Amino acid sequence: MAGTRRKRKARTPRNALYAQSGGATAVVNATACGVIEAARAAQGRIGRLYAARDGILGALHEDLIDTSRESAAAVRALRATPGAAFGSCRYKLKGLEADHDKYARLVEVLRAHDIGWFFYNGGNDSADTTLKLSQISARMGYPLAAIGVPKTIDNDLVGTDCCPGFGSAAKYVATSIREAALDVASMASTSTRVFVLEVMGRHAGWLTAACGLAAAHAGDAPHLLLFPELLFDEARFLDRVKRTVERVGYCVIAVSEGLRDAQGAFLAEQGSVDAFGHRQLGGVAPLIAHLVQARLGYKQHWAVADYLQRAARHIASKTDLEQAYALGRAAVRLGLAGRNAVIPVIERVSTRPYRWRIGVARLETVANRERRLPRRFIGADGFNITPACRRYLAPLIEGEAPPPFRDGLPAYVQLRKAPVRRRLRSAFRA
Amino acid sequence: MAGTRRKRKARTPRNALYAQSGGATAVVNATACGVIEAARAAQGRIGRLYAARDGILGALHEDLIDTSRESAAAVRALRATPGAAFGSCRYKLKGLEADHDKYARLVEVLRAHDIGWFFYNGGNDSADTTLKLSQISARMGYPLAAIGVPKTIDNDLVGTDCCPGFGSAAKYVATSIREAALDVASMASTSTRVFVLEVMGRHAGWLTAACGLAAAHAGDAPHLLLFPELLFDEARFLDRVKRTVERVGYCVIAVSEGLRDAQGAFLAEQGSVDAFGHRQLGGVAPLIAHLVQARLGYKQHWAVADYLQRAARHIASKTDLEQAYALGRAAVRLGLAGRNAVIPVIERVSTRPYRWRIGVARLETVANRERRLPRRFIGADGFNITPACRRYLAPLIEGEAPPPFRDGLPAYVQLRKAPVRRRLRSAFRA
Repeated sequence: MAGTRRKRKARTPRNALYAQSGGATAVVNATACGVIEAARAAQGRIGRLYAARDGILGALHEDLIDTSRESAAAVRALRATPGAAFGSCRYKLKGLEADHDKYARLVEVLRAHDIGWFFYNGGNDSADTTLKLSQISARMGYPLAAIGVPKTIDNDLVGTDCCPGFGSAAKYVATSIREAALDVASMASTSTRVFVLEVMGRHAGWLTAACGLAAAHAGDAPHLLLFPELLFDEARFLDRVKRTVERVGYCVIAVSEGLRDAQGAFLAEQGSVDAFGHRQLGGVAPLIAHLVQARLGYKQHWAVADYLQRAARHIASKTDLEQAYALGRAAVRLGLAGRNAVIPVIERVSTRPYRWRIGVARLETVANRERRLPRRFIGADGFNITPACRRYLAPLIEGEAPPPFRDGLPAYVQLRKAPVRRRLRSAFRA
Repeated sequence: MAGTRRKRKARTPRNALYAQSGGATAVVNATACGVIEAARAAQGRIGRLYAARDGILGALHEDLIDTSRESAAAVRALRATPGAAFGSCRYKLKGLEADHDKYARLVEVLRAHDIGWFFYNGGNDSADTTLKLSQISARMGYPLAAIGVPKTIDNDLVGTDCCPGFGSAAKYVATSIREAALDVASMASTSTRVFVLEVMGRHAGWLTAACGLAAAHAGDAPHLLLFPELLFDEARFLDRVKRTVERVGYCVIAVSEGLRDAQGAFLAEQGSVDAFGHRQLGGVAPLIAHLVQARLGYKQHWAVADYLQRAARHIASKTDLEQAYALGRAAVRLGLAGRNAVIPVIERVSTRPYRWRIGVARLETVANRERRLPRRFIGADGFNITPACRRYLAPLIEGEAPPPFRDGLPAYVQLRKAPVRRRLRSAFRA
């Protein structure tokens, strides 16, 4: 019986597994589309392409989805759908020793479904997991190509010129702050003088910097950017706000959720207490806005975009979308070429005109590292971006690629997500 | 000398004045475009069209802008530019007796510039001011057609089927909550379970209701809407959140900034204290999110869209845009027809297919009244909208009309705003 099964397997191509990891983006499903379409095109060389439900957890729990049950139209529609269509998770595996049982379990699941390729779509944590999986499968004598696929709105992966997901979030925040600034400018003589928009990026100020793209000319909003890379200097900040309001009539500010005080502590975690008596975490925009009102007396408004900025497929960057899709296809291509422990990346060929191509990085050069905004991208005063930063960012938000609309709203696809029959008797215990 | 001037005036057509009032919207400039284009088309009957800088304040201060100095292309581009291009203000005039000097000053300014038509683009306060101005000018023997033009994202004007500005804000909030919900759904197994989006509408739940449009099928997000028309029932709310998470895996909530507690007090004004020790006003979304976390233990995220929702020209409703423009043209048409103390409104001819036409209402039927969300538009449980509400709202967000993009961002026009030479020696003293 076992012999028969092995014989049959030898004739049929091995299967592949795709998983999404960490925070969703506006275009991570475009990467999924690229992986699925490339795997379908490789019929005869790749058997079935499965997707893990809710990221690596689905792999651990042997909770797999058969992507071959999705129609070509549904797969295509993934390009226009935000979120992580197969589910994602925040679940970091530790080192090979500390989490040995989990890695062994992953190999057990991969073996049960004859997975020859594992495509893991995430940030630097995921690159680390992918790398370790390639190592343990080799050690256990299980042949596997473990390939990373980049994704993060934080743009903080090393080894790539930019990260899919970032360009769309950048386009959203720059558009939003430009629009809100026009509103503030309309009313500043009698109403709101200071507007604060909070953006994501706890450790890296790439999205804060992207807000600066909205200021096409000197004096344009946003007037101040507060980066997580620089400690908050209250006195200098208030002085700049005051001078801006006196000069322009109003002041528009973008602040990173990860802004830290002079002692290096996150401002948003300094425990305000709300009306229900709960300690309030998050929300640095209201803190900054109220500081301005209390010290300078200006009427303020603030916004916290939160998930809106990373889910805003309706205003996605076409460049970002194309790169996300291309990276998905490239991952499969690398797998078919027999590569292991690598990740396709974006290489910038030229900035004007903008040209890019797909390159390859080894996972060990990417895993667990974080690329912050370089100091040369932040203006000398610490409140703005430099021309070099603008040149870097500008192409990443280029182009529009709106989703289809139905009844006035973006029409997003819902997949069937047909489960793959389990082959293991044992369940995963975390 | 005086005789000569009067004689010359008798031969030249009288001028017109346009002013924007209150909060800006994504399409109030489309109304401005309609007014300007219609006035230009009426050359020979209307002299120059001026705009008051910063709304009624510009009229009081004799701070006027000559719209004839704007190019046809710039005027056309107003259709695609959010904010209030000529400036707006929050400045409510009281009754004719209490604020007699201000009304008299307005008539003095209008007389100095031979204004025969005053078009005031705002909400119910502005309708009141326009009405009073028509009354005092008649009393003072100054011939004036005072005409309102509707505008408010709150959709709370009576006498019109809907208000320009609302449809676009509605499309923005429904799109945003649909997108964010996909993100939450992706991660709910290990991360955020409850997401709260705060929307505008302090007294009327029209925008809260609009979020409900994102739920196309039963079980779709948003799962709960918290209306300003109903007092917040904490126990019932928490029970519904818990049951939703247990059934669907996550819960997405839209909350009005004007949600009130069991005693009728605004929740957002219950004075939380932030890290700087300031009393914190505004932000009901964080309150609700933290309540859920504290009582039910679910991880939460929240967003406050604030001005983003009323400035989001990039996702404006085409229906809304067309109505805003048409109302601007209609106001001029009414003026040319010799009407006074009226306001053009939207009349719904049919819902399926959606057909509308311009009607006329007398200002006295509109001024100072507020249209709340009718109870029959709120589901029996108080947390959702009814099919009747959905039928009413659906056509208002129909159609897309994106602005032009340049360098990846919406390209918005900046007007010249050439000042009109002052004719009065006296300054306005508030």
